[in-house]
Amino acid sequence: MITQLKKSGLVLILTGLFLFPLINPLYAQDDEAPSYTTMSEFQEHPILYTKFMVDNLWVLVAGMLVFIMHLGFSALESGLTQQKNCVNVLFKNVFIISIGILTYYICGFNLMYPGDFNGILGFAGFFIPSYGALEDFGYITPLGYALDMTAWTDFFFQAMFAATGATIVSGAVAERVKLPSFMLFVTLFVAIAYPISGAWKWGGGWLDANGFYDFAGSSVVHAFGGYGALACVILLGPRKGKFLEGGRIRPIPAHSFPLATIGVFLLFLGWFGFNGGSVLSADPVLISYVVTTTTMAAAAGGIAAITTAWTVLKKPDLSMALNGILAGLVGITASADSVGVGEAVIIGLIAGIIVVFSILMFDKFGLDDPVGAISVHGICGNWGTIAAGIFGGFSVGWQIIGTLAISIWFTFAFIIFGILKATLGIRVSEEEEFEGLDIGEHGQEAYGDFQMRTR
Amino acid sequence: MITQLKKSGLVLILTGLFLFPLINPLYAQDDEAPSYTTMSEFQEHPILYTKFMVDNLWVLVAGMLVFIMHLGFSALESGLTQQKNCVNVLFKNVFIISIGILTYYICGFNLMYPGDFNGILGFAGFFIPSYGALEDFGYITPLGYALDMTAWTDFFFQAMFAATGATIVSGAVAERVKLPSFMLFVTLFVAIAYPISGAWKWGGGWLDANGFYDFAGSSVVHAFGGYGALACVILLGPRKGKFLEGGRIRPIPAHSFPLATIGVFLLFLGWFGFNGGSVLSADPVLISYVVTTTTMAAAAGGIAAITTAWTVLKKPDLSMALNGILAGLVGITASADSVGVGEAVIIGLIAGIIVVFSILMFDKFGLDDPVGAISVHGICGNWGTIAAGIFGGFSVGWQIIGTLAISIWFTFAFIIFGILKATLGIRVSEEEEFEGLDIGEHGQEAYGDFQMRTR
Amino acid sequence: MITQLKKSGLVLILTGLFLFPLINPLYAQDDEAPSYTTMSEFQEHPILYTKFMVDNLWVLVAGMLVFIMHLGFSALESGLTQQKNCVNVLFKNVFIISIGILTYYICGFNLMYPGDFNGILGFAGFFIPSYGALEDFGYITPLGYALDMTAWTDFFFQAMFAATGATIVSGAVAERVKLPSFMLFVTLFVAIAYPISGAWKWGGGWLDANGFYDFAGSSVVHAFGGYGALACVILLGPRKGKFLEGGRIRPIPAHSFPLATIGVFLLFLGWFGFNGGSVLSADPVLISYVVTTTTMAAAAGGIAAITTAWTVLKKPDLSMALNGILAGLVGITASADSVGVGEAVIIGLIAGIIVVFSILMFDKFGLDDPVGAISVHGICGNWGTIAAGIFGGFSVGWQIIGTLAISIWFTFAFIIFGILKATLGIRVSEEEEFEGLDIGEHGQEAYGDFQMRTR
Repeated sequence: MITQLKKSGLVLILTGLFLFPLINPLYAQDDEAPSYTTMSEFQEHPILYTKFMVDNLWVLVAGMLVFIMHLGFSALESGLTQQKNCVNVLFKNVFIISIGILTYYICGFNLMYPGDFNGILGFAGFFIPSYGALEDFGYITPLGYALDMTAWTDFFFQAMFAATGATIVSGAVAERVKLPSFMLFVTLFVAIAYPISGAWKWGGGWLDANGFYDFAGSSVVHAFGGYGALACVILLGPRKGKFLEGGRIRPIPAHSFPLATIGVFLLFLGWFGFNGGSVLSADPVLISYVVTTTTMAAAAGGIAAITTAWTVLKKPDLSMALNGILAGLVGITASADSVGVGEAVIIGLIAGIIVVFSILMFDKFGLDDPVGAISVHGICGNWGTIAAGIFGGFSVGWQIIGTLAISIWFTFAFIIFGILKATLGIRVSEEEEFEGLDIGEHGQEAYGDFQMRTR
Repeated sequence: MITQLKKSGLVLILTGLFLFPLINPLYAQDDEAPSYTTMSEFQEHPILYTKFMVDNLWVLVAGMLVFIMHLGFSALESGLTQQKNCVNVLFKNVFIISIGILTYYICGFNLMYPGDFNGILGFAGFFIPSYGALEDFGYITPLGYALDMTAWTDFFFQAMFAATGATIVSGAVAERVKLPSFMLFVTLFVAIAYPISGAWKWGGGWLDANGFYDFAGSSVVHAFGGYGALACVILLGPRKGKFLEGGRIRPIPAHSFPLATIGVFLLFLGWFGFNGGSVLSADPVLISYVVTTTTMAAAAGGIAAITTAWTVLKKPDLSMALNGILAGLVGITASADSVGVGEAVIIGLIAGIIVVFSILMFDKFGLDDPVGAISVHGICGNWGTIAAGIFGGFSVGWQIIGTLAISIWFTFAFIIFGILKATLGIRVSEEEEFEGLDIGEHGQEAYGDFQMRTR
Repeated sequence: MITQLKKSGLVLILTGLFLFPLINPLYAQDDEAPSYTTMSEFQEHPILYTKFMVDNLWVLVAGMLVFIMHLGFSALESGLTQQKNCVNVLFKNVFIISIGILTYYICGFNLMYPGDFNGILGFAGFFIPSYGALEDFGYITPLGYALDMTAWTDFFFQAMFAATGATIVSGAVAERVKLPSFMLFVTLFVAIAYPISGAWKWGGGWLDANGFYDFAGSSVVHAFGGYGALACVILLGPRKGKFLEGGRIRPIPAHSFPLATIGVFLLFLGWFGFNGGSVLSADPVLISYVVTTTTMAAAAGGIAAITTAWTVLKKPDLSMALNGILAGLVGITASADSVGVGEAVIIGLIAGIIVVFSILMFDKFGLDDPVGAISVHGICGNWGTIAAGIFGGFSVGWQIIGTLAISIWFTFAFIIFGILKATLGIRVSEEEEFEGLDIGEHGQEAYGDFQMRTR
């Protein structure tokens, strides 16, 4: 009964979200379709226009690659968890990409790029700006900055980034979180927390002003998500049966390694856009250089994690190999444009070693992170940020300060998720956890028709 | 015995198809390899040539994205159906992309772009034109139209579109259709019906001449496929055990939600090319705008379907969420370049609501569409076409007329599939349907080696 | 005990590989980050620079498409093999892409492009050149050749190719090969054998000097991998239970056709980059032409294999359909830029017929290739090379000589794998093969948590 009420409340909130565009006065700005830009408008500067076309095209394609990461996360997280919670994991990912895009349109973009502001918090108003004037072949938004791409490309690329932080949390809380509470949390996390985190660096905020460097988001996206995940995991507690008496840890097996492997390859692919697109132009030297360092760090992370896990666990562990690739990718993200190729290899190798020990350590601490998200994104995100100082020539001090500053989102997540814990509740019942969230929350099974061949 | 004869007949027809290029006199045109185009040929207009390169590159990449949609359809359709028919669903999709490309080369392209014609039916001859002269940095085909891309890019992009309509039917008739009959039907549907449907709008036909607008094919591709699917579903009848006595409807569960989710994410990705490539250039404002509206409508469709299904079905339904995203994508396809971003959200929201009720309605009507293809592509395709009138400033009257005109393909499909029903038969035997088409038609199992861990 | 020692040895070798960059004097070259290239540097030739941007962008994106092929191979190989060896297959693929990239950076690139050399073997030193001077808007490497892309794009694209040959072997030896031995073999195969094979044609070696033509690697990559696979399969022997007494062949079923189908679609997609990127520029006519011939051959291969298998095996066989598409792709790879579209169809049709008979023939010969890799890549690679002579106007004699020359890698693989057989051993124990390599080598199961619904 009460559950129904809570669910109805969620439905109402979501419905309100939809109706908002209809009543908001700013909406009127969107009414006009863009006038088609023709060569003639640019006839005085056709070369610059053509260069603009290339720059714009690459960032747009890069945004599509970042989009693929959401499929990568869906596959990885559902693959590494239990079959009985698979529909739930997939549903959360489908929800996150949808709500992430919508909220980034409603408020995220203008929280992240508020124009002139105090460096901590600013807001340029609801809804992305409508079709703006093209000037000087970049564009001048109402906020006064110019880029070698259209406003729409900028919005699309950044919107694809936005949902990533929330997705990181999704993996860590899998298999026990109550769906409506998670949906509310994640909506706030992606609509408000992420854009402010981004504004501090990419929106020209206080971290940026002090020389903190984070090329494509080791801190601003990945450690951000990792900190949020840590807070939620602490509040949520481990899955039943994970930590046994006497400190024994029972590994809960992945339900589909093919799915998890598909996920990691797609994340690797998407990262070409995540880092390569962060160049924000198609500068030929820079985009190819960034893609190269990204690739090298990923490969090094994979080999390092394979070797480390083989040494420590005495077996060639596929899940560690997969997490090693991701660790290398997260590690290079802060400095992909700023370090040598050999240094990228070293950053990846260290990330691949770190991630194995980190995953084992969190298990030791009794913190249950089913997919290793806190280690991959949180710990290796911090490593990458500091590595940008060590190898990329940025102030190590400010890199550390930035890392600590981003940890504020641990507190944010802890408060919001804590409030949800005290009110709606954040964890499913023990019975539901045992039976699986797929039946409990969705009334659906991931493989509802699967039959075995009789042998 | 008779079955063998029928299969042999199919083999003969397909064989004939292959030998055709060898004997056709027009084939000689293909014998020459293209001469390499060098900068020097364009030295008088190097800027235009460079712009031509960018335009051509984007549409080519967009064609690759549309190609991915065929993997998306394969995954979605096989995921949402039963395990015992999975090989059959996959086989049909592999066949469709192959035969769709071949027939588009043999006759489709020249049916769709016949040059000057009566507006209803024209044909520029078998086989795509051979390497044409490049003039004015576009190209002049024998038919006299110029584009900012090469003839090959144009062919490739359009060929990838062509098989889509047929794929829509594939999902709707799954789990009971007789394979050879389906293969014959689908060959005609993709080789003849689709190109004529396309010619009416994109080939400069009568709908185009009267101001009907369909940017990337809400009607011309999606409703087209939906109408074909509806005709086949009516002729075929429901799967055994779907509709029980007393009007009870037994849901037949999806055999793999991970597969279905992969499918929807890949379709979403491919749609960036489907709509974005339909700009037919890399116009920076337009391609980024179209990708943005496409994205917003998809996200809105997902959230709307989640909310609607939660309200109506009292649970967060993953298959409805997935279909909601697709509904939003289909809905925006007719007007992605012509409506405001806020309007794209509204179009997507309405599509996401429509699709849930439509799927429930077709079930009520006793029409069994295993993947919801008629609702997603047919109903939402119609909605998108009309929405282009309401929000995009086109004549609502002609949008409705166009929608009705496209419904002629219901009749086409009904006649062709009806003839097949009367001759070869279109439905597998009750025993085969019970046992599954994988064993019955292919002698293969989707998961032939799958073993359970003993616990 | 001895196994542990062997594994430790492997760990040591891999560890050494990581430490190498730290102590190598050449490493110092990487220390500098690239200086950002700005428009101003090119202000005297802005048009050429913009063209350079487009060319560079396409080859970079093409490299990403080739990357996707590694996911394609992972999915195809794991899908077509047994469930009990799935983790092992996936692990090998994750290892190959990682080690392939690292070794191509360490020595592969400079073995493949050694500059002026004797045409058979040359080496330009360890590690790829550091950030080179940009001259004349191409780049001049220390080796003195110019391309319309940056050194990094060149490296990235070629590195993605490198691991492909090794991946082909991976599928053929699946389900019985000892992991550490395979890892050592594959490291040598990708680090040394492939780059030398490539140098003979693409590095300006003796095959290139004599007019041998292989556009994107029917021989240099695919037949190369096929020959290696053949040697390994001969040394390894068939899987237990494949060949029974009295010449009977027991088909070992694929454990997941959805996975295999995903793999083939992704390989098809990746091939657009494999062939299209081999144009090494964004030449609009050429890239679109190459993508078109590639597409046509794949579609024709699929239809031909469907028809052939239906005729021979009396059923529409999905695995043959999938291999037919791949056969068409391998077949067109040597001549995608040099034959007519109709000829591409014929090359694909013949490849699709060949592959069916080849797979059946190898079974007859008692050579056990679980995924058909030798037929698809080896036999059809040879067919494609010769087809380039027949249809593309190149010397059929030298095409045959080139094919034979590449067969030297059979000998190379035979010697290396033979030494491993005599020392470490190359095959798992009979018990482990029966139980599955996932448990035996990795202590992990592909679907460790999979549970059936009770009905």
